Amino acid sequence: MQVQQQRLREDVLSNAAFGALDVPAGHGRTVLTGTDADRRARERFCDRLRDAGLSVRVDGVGNIVGRWCPDSADPSKAPVAAGSHLDSVPEGGIFDGPLGVYAALEAVRAMQDAGVEPDRPVEVVSLTEEEGQRFDGGLLGSAVASGELDVSEALAVEDDDGISLGAALEDIGFDGEGRVDASEWDAWLELHVEQSERLESAGVSAGVVTTITGLTRCTVEVVGEANHAGATSMTDRSDAFAAASEFVLDVESAATEWATKESETAVGTVGKGVVHPNAPNVIAGRTELTLDVRDVEYRSMEAIVSRARKSLERIAAERPVDYRLERPWDREPVPMSERCRAALHDAGVAAGVETMDLHSGAAHDTMHIAGVTDAALLFAPSRDGISHNPREWTDWADCANATAVLAGALARLATE
Amino acid sequence: MQVQQQRLREDVLSNAAFGALDVPAGHGRTVLTGTDADRRARERFCDRLRDAGLSVRVDGVGNIVGRWCPDSADPSKAPVAAGSHLDSVPEGGIFDGPLGVYAALEAVRAMQDAGVEPDRPVEVVSLTEEEGQRFDGGLLGSAVASGELDVSEALAVEDDDGISLGAALEDIGFDGEGRVDASEWDAWLELHVEQSERLESAGVSAGVVTTITGLTRCTVEVVGEANHAGATSMTDRSDAFAAASEFVLDVESAATEWATKESETAVGTVGKGVVHPNAPNVIAGRTELTLDVRDVEYRSMEAIVSRARKSLERIAAERPVDYRLERPWDREPVPMSERCRAALHDAGVAAGVETMDLHSGAAHDTMHIAGVTDAALLFAPSRDGISHNPREWTDWADCANATAVLAGALARLATE
Repeated sequence: MQVQQQRLREDVLSNAAFGALDVPAGHGRTVLTGTDADRRARERFCDRLRDAGLSVRVDGVGNIVGRWCPDSADPSKAPVAAGSHLDSVPEGGIFDGPLGVYAALEAVRAMQDAGVEPDRPVEVVSLTEEEGQRFDGGLLGSAVASGELDVSEALAVEDDDGISLGAALEDIGFDGEGRVDASEWDAWLELHVEQSERLESAGVSAGVVTTITGLTRCTVEVVGEANHAGATSMTDRSDAFAAASEFVLDVESAATEWATKESETAVGTVGKGVVHPNAPNVIAGRTELTLDVRDVEYRSMEAIVSRARKSLERIAAERPVDYRLERPWDREPVPMSERCRAALHDAGVAAGVETMDLHSGAAHDTMHIAGVTDAALLFAPSRDGISHNPREWTDWADCANATAVLAGALARLATE
Repeated sequence: MQVQQQRLREDVLSNAAFGALDVPAGHGRTVLTGTDADRRARERFCDRLRDAGLSVRVDGVGNIVGRWCPDSADPSKAPVAAGSHLDSVPEGGIFDGPLGVYAALEAVRAMQDAGVEPDRPVEVVSLTEEEGQRFDGGLLGSAVASGELDVSEALAVEDDDGISLGAALEDIGFDGEGRVDASEWDAWLELHVEQSERLESAGVSAGVVTTITGLTRCTVEVVGEANHAGATSMTDRSDAFAAASEFVLDVESAATEWATKESETAVGTVGKGVVHPNAPNVIAGRTELTLDVRDVEYRSMEAIVSRARKSLERIAAERPVDYRLERPWDREPVPMSERCRAALHDAGVAAGVETMDLHSGAAHDTMHIAGVTDAALLFAPSRDGISHNPREWTDWADCANATAVLAGALARLATE
């Protein structure tokens, strides 16, 4: 069985044209769910599925499934599925998501080319709003596919302008019917870029994930008092931006200390900060922040969130500010399926592609799907570990090698 | 001569309806230059000028002048002028600006009611874009009136959406002719809210400003590297938000230390912060900040800006980030005219309104005008020192008392 590097490359680069950024270096794109760029990316993907002879369905939240059910396959058997997502963060890279979607399609084409005769159908999947950039939360399509979120709940989620996911999907013509149900899959595989440097450092093209990190997301608001920057003396201030700055640094310290002493995979990030009223001559009256905490050990997440709370308590004791911390999203670490991991390692050996075990520090749709069926996650190397950035890059040879592992594992799982 | 508190109050409250905010407490408004709220505020002001028999002209940058030239006045003599501004910061208060504009009109009406016969014309003025919220910089109308900025330069200034001041003024029908020339005024007086607590603490209705604080405005950019919040270990990060947070706290420390040890009027503020890409799951790649530094002593400003530069040097030495600091705006402290200050104190005695000397920590249009003619600035108390906030408040009795001082001083300067 032979994966065609050139065919995969053309797919990824063609997809990169949608929402492409004019940047001095690298390849950037912004593909937010329900935008014109998203519509065009989805339409091209559906065309390519059909080109390969797959039947296409779109579910109620815009999840797209291409189904390959050749004569050898029993259509009543649970399919083996693979895929990822087509959306991106603002100013993101071209591999994060699309590589896994088009690698799954390439795997099916490679099986077709090699005359593989699967016993089960094989499905190629693109899941909606993985990044959670426009419609809050992230991993939305897989949350619906795994039954964690109702279709109607998902469609009611609104963006910052009050536009619902339902309206946005209707706007781009990807408001389909029913619900892709991941529990009906026999197994699920996702290929994704690593977004870290371990594979590159090891010189390995394919990483088999052992555990996907747990993830806690908190929202924090620090409230001071907006006042004139010139007429308010330094001793009479209640500056919500300065207070928030202490919190940002406390989170960084707490996570760094925990990673050094307890669990090196632990991370804590304040990636979003919005200052109000955000004027040069007005002392900030309010600052909104997000806190993102992850580790393969849940106790690390608890410890870092606890340190973040203590930081806010201290700040509010030392400064005339109030605060609010909410924790709307908390997910424990998710171990991957032994059976699927074994299929990936075996496929690596068969294809002559070295594999290695590692953990995933990033959340992925596979987290949700692993709750309802056997699932595994495969990584391809990220140059310098960079992602969510136009400088995100994976060498085409690595893309092809990792896709060969994916294809081999899919063939194994579909013919068991 | 008698100022009518009720007439002044109706003017200020009617003006407060334009751009009014729906807030739980206080009276808020957002009146940015060239918006519909600005147009309506300007139109009402012109109507009220005409109601009082003043002739109205609008200059090329939208500065509005109502001229009262009764038979007693020699129209060839240099006028005495008073006024302030009608624009606001986002979510600002109702007194900051409009009080001075309508107090100047009320002063003229009080002179008319009392049969005052000035030797010179008296002009009531509203200056464009004092706050600098939509069209960068601030004090724009007075910069043009004092000859510091050409009309054409001012009209070319663009907002964040690339709309020029010229286009915005044309849009609201306030693109007039020529240029109000402040050097042609014999004297200038501005009544403004204090935006600090000194008058309230002293129980005094009218403060005569001795010096307007100098003001330096810097823009700062901290550049790290955007990367995935989950997949990038704590030790591999270049977090532009965390680095910027150190800067915010260093500025606060430097200004507080200087105010404690050297000059209690010194202030330093980072009021604006914009994080890129500003997503919960992306480490910040870039953060833009503003730095606002003021004091009545220029050496304080130099010292605090120098400390801010050293902070950035230290941060860039300790973290893998770059920075850029620009200082587009630097203005030395401005002493007020002795003659005008004496007129204000004398008017206070005559009206039975106590006055006190103080400095202005805020920048005002009077800074520019003082460069080309005799000028003074009069303060009315701000409750709890709050301004640039819907909770900004000045008791109506204080408004009337301060307006009585303004009216008396205008009458003195116009009949000398």
